[in-house]
Amino acid sequence: MREILIVGAGKSTSVLINYLLQQADKEDLFLRIGDIDLENAKKACNNHPKCEAFELDVFKAESREPAIKRANIVISMLPARFHIEVAKDCLKFGKNMVTASYISDQMKALDEEVKEKGLVFMNEIGVDPGIDHMSAMQVIDRIRDKGGKILLFESFTGGLVAPESDNNLWNYKFTWNPRNVVVAGQGGVAEFIQEGKYKYIPYHRLFRRTEFLEVEGHGKFEGYANRNSLKYQSIYGLEDALTLYRGTIRKVGFSRAWNMFVQLGMTDDSFEMKNSEEMSYRDFINSFLPYSPSDSVELKVRHNLKIDQDDIMWDKLIELDLFNPDKKIGIKNATPAQALQKILMDKWSLSHDDKDMIVMYHKFGYELNGEKKQIDSTMVHIGEDQSKTAMAKTVGLPVALATIMILNGEIKTPGVQLPIQKEVYGPLLKKLEEHDIKFEEKETEYLGYNPFGEVGN
Amino acid sequence: MREILIVGAGKSTSVLINYLLQQADKEDLFLRIGDIDLENAKKACNNHPKCEAFELDVFKAESREPAIKRANIVISMLPARFHIEVAKDCLKFGKNMVTASYISDQMKALDEEVKEKGLVFMNEIGVDPGIDHMSAMQVIDRIRDKGGKILLFESFTGGLVAPESDNNLWNYKFTWNPRNVVVAGQGGVAEFIQEGKYKYIPYHRLFRRTEFLEVEGHGKFEGYANRNSLKYQSIYGLEDALTLYRGTIRKVGFSRAWNMFVQLGMTDDSFEMKNSEEMSYRDFINSFLPYSPSDSVELKVRHNLKIDQDDIMWDKLIELDLFNPDKKIGIKNATPAQALQKILMDKWSLSHDDKDMIVMYHKFGYELNGEKKQIDSTMVHIGEDQSKTAMAKTVGLPVALATIMILNGEIKTPGVQLPIQKEVYGPLLKKLEEHDIKFEEKETEYLGYNPFGEVGN
Repeated sequence: MREILIVGAGKSTSVLINYLLQQADKEDLFLRIGDIDLENAKKACNNHPKCEAFELDVFKAESREPAIKRANIVISMLPARFHIEVAKDCLKFGKNMVTASYISDQMKALDEEVKEKGLVFMNEIGVDPGIDHMSAMQVIDRIRDKGGKILLFESFTGGLVAPESDNNLWNYKFTWNPRNVVVAGQGGVAEFIQEGKYKYIPYHRLFRRTEFLEVEGHGKFEGYANRNSLKYQSIYGLEDALTLYRGTIRKVGFSRAWNMFVQLGMTDDSFEMKNSEEMSYRDFINSFLPYSPSDSVELKVRHNLKIDQDDIMWDKLIELDLFNPDKKIGIKNATPAQALQKILMDKWSLSHDDKDMIVMYHKFGYELNGEKKQIDSTMVHIGEDQSKTAMAKTVGLPVALATIMILNGEIKTPGVQLPIQKEVYGPLLKKLEEHDIKFEEKETEYLGYNPFGEVGN
Repeated sequence: MREILIVGAGKSTSVLINYLLQQADKEDLFLRIGDIDLENAKKACNNHPKCEAFELDVFKAESREPAIKRANIVISMLPARFHIEVAKDCLKFGKNMVTASYISDQMKALDEEVKEKGLVFMNEIGVDPGIDHMSAMQVIDRIRDKGGKILLFESFTGGLVAPESDNNLWNYKFTWNPRNVVVAGQGGVAEFIQEGKYKYIPYHRLFRRTEFLEVEGHGKFEGYANRNSLKYQSIYGLEDALTLYRGTIRKVGFSRAWNMFVQLGMTDDSFEMKNSEEMSYRDFINSFLPYSPSDSVELKVRHNLKIDQDDIMWDKLIELDLFNPDKKIGIKNATPAQALQKILMDKWSLSHDDKDMIVMYHKFGYELNGEKKQIDSTMVHIGEDQSKTAMAKTVGLPVALATIMILNGEIKTPGVQLPIQKEVYGPLLKKLEEHDIKFEEKETEYLGYNPFGEVGN
């Protein structure tokens, strides 16, 4: 029996664990699930005979080391910053490892040693990062193998609410960590390259510089720029591509409305507000508006943001009950972002029967045999229920599949990896299709940014 | 003879040094000027018989210690972050010390020891901080001594170009460190309190939330909020004041125009731009605009910032030659702020015969014997020439005067101090008046924010 250690049994791991347990007999697997909270681990095991739950404190060597030592492979589902603790022991005891998180600098620094020991540390193998890498590289490699040259690569992913559960004016609910949504785009300028020109969008303009995306059968979406598009120049070998742009997908109108919060300063996470615990929702928004002895908070918002009385933006604010003088923030020393998250969670939390949806959209512009072409590749996946959410499936299944592939020696290139190699994405994307996670491709005319060949600015 | 050690002989020290040398005979002073660049120090001494120039490297104990050991008092005119090196030696050798900089946490930490040794470390005794503290505390103490209670304190300072040299559309030139102007307001939200309500302005709104100020005989100015108004609650003992607001003065229209740079992202100092050395001014502004195959950079700016063709904002941009495709930034790995500074220095540097101007404006709202009153106190000082600038005078004279007062035992309260004590500001402000640095006071009706007694929002 091959023993898989899963470190961290948060809510997001249900699909991962269920899938591995389903495969336990066929693949000869035994799962050990370690969590700081034993009850969490037990719930995850659900009395399955091929599963053992135990308490694991990743910061205590005496708790961590024996668990890692006896495993055949280790999956870390901890918050990204804690993976390094697990990784060092995996190196020490010669174990392969899988995470769904971005490769940190600390993790990257282990690459040489991991290679020397012939180990595979597979990272970034969830949905974004993960399925985005695999599905993009599959098309990029195919184009290159034919002798084509990539001119343009744009890639967008969004975690959204499914159409059947989409019943608020923002067309949005929290389907993953709400905090990440509230602070999205912060911490640095968004950099990318368009037709050979480097472009920079500061945070306070990010949600006003969106692009529209049409997904056949699913309607129109919008995308705003991610911070780090340029790092994919080297990762995907796209140093010569004229356009490289990565973004986040929302339903049309979300960004324009979200921008109201950004403009007022309500998404700021860098300072604590005075008296935040006792502050009402109305006080909260008012603290970002000029003092007035007589004007209402409502009028000040409208004037400040130039919102006409018949603008749907206004209805979006009203829907959130933002002007309520009785509801309290109720959090000590809250940053504006924390206070806003509290307000949004009242309205944007998934109901018991709500479903979520993952949307991914890649555009590949390329030149082949002197001709410019474009492929648009899209994936839409809707969750089944509150535990088999689209997010949990698209994160958990690739992690589970990669783990089994490593155990079976199908993934064997050693090092601190991400899934951009054919040996990984080929079989893995094929298996994901069995779970209805699949991409639709459409060949179109090369649209680029310059259909008429004009001189750019 | 009393020996004064001046550490650092930058351009801004000319008035300070000249004044001390003028007083040398009368006050029995000898100046030693130490600078990392001996030529700088020599220039500052200008062969005066009561002055000695020498090379001083503040980071080398063998260079620093003997100089401090023999002095009677030490003035540090180094950049603020280096004062601590001098301060530690002053403590070690039992020397009083003067700086014009804000008290850093490191400096503050020395307070106990400084007190124990009976030393005076006088800081924040330039213009802002400095004259602002003294002139504000003089009025605040006067009101309190009469039994009045401060309701409102607002304080604004600006370093501007004098009207006779004000010949560009921005009504602004660099009269001090240009970098500080370009990054002004960055690094945190502006916090203050108005009529008992805490208010927060994010950086990207700062230059659109200005207040107007009228200075008799000098016209209309505007002020934007400083970051740190609330720290004056404890420093000035204004914990009960309903309104506390500190700001920076500009000529009317500057902030609205500056906001264009903020909105585009051109003041960002947090990342380095690609190919900044070879980038033209036109490339620079274009990198903050969406790519277009055909639209001009000019049209994109107008559209992006919603500038009508007859808006003076547009003329301000044109005046800076921002769209020039031939002028190069010419700085390696420049941040946007550094690139913008380069462009602005072409146009906003003082000419040989330009004069500068310091404007300060305090408002004090108070209640006395059941009546609400207000005092507006203003100071305008125009520079004489390029070496006796208003900035150099208003920084240098208070430092020089305080130094002599400490030597003469007129300032004696030990500790890490700032000039908020009567023993300091009383005589010092009186002496500044002899140099035409004086405040005009005007009693007005209490205007506050709530003249009609309405319920605030």
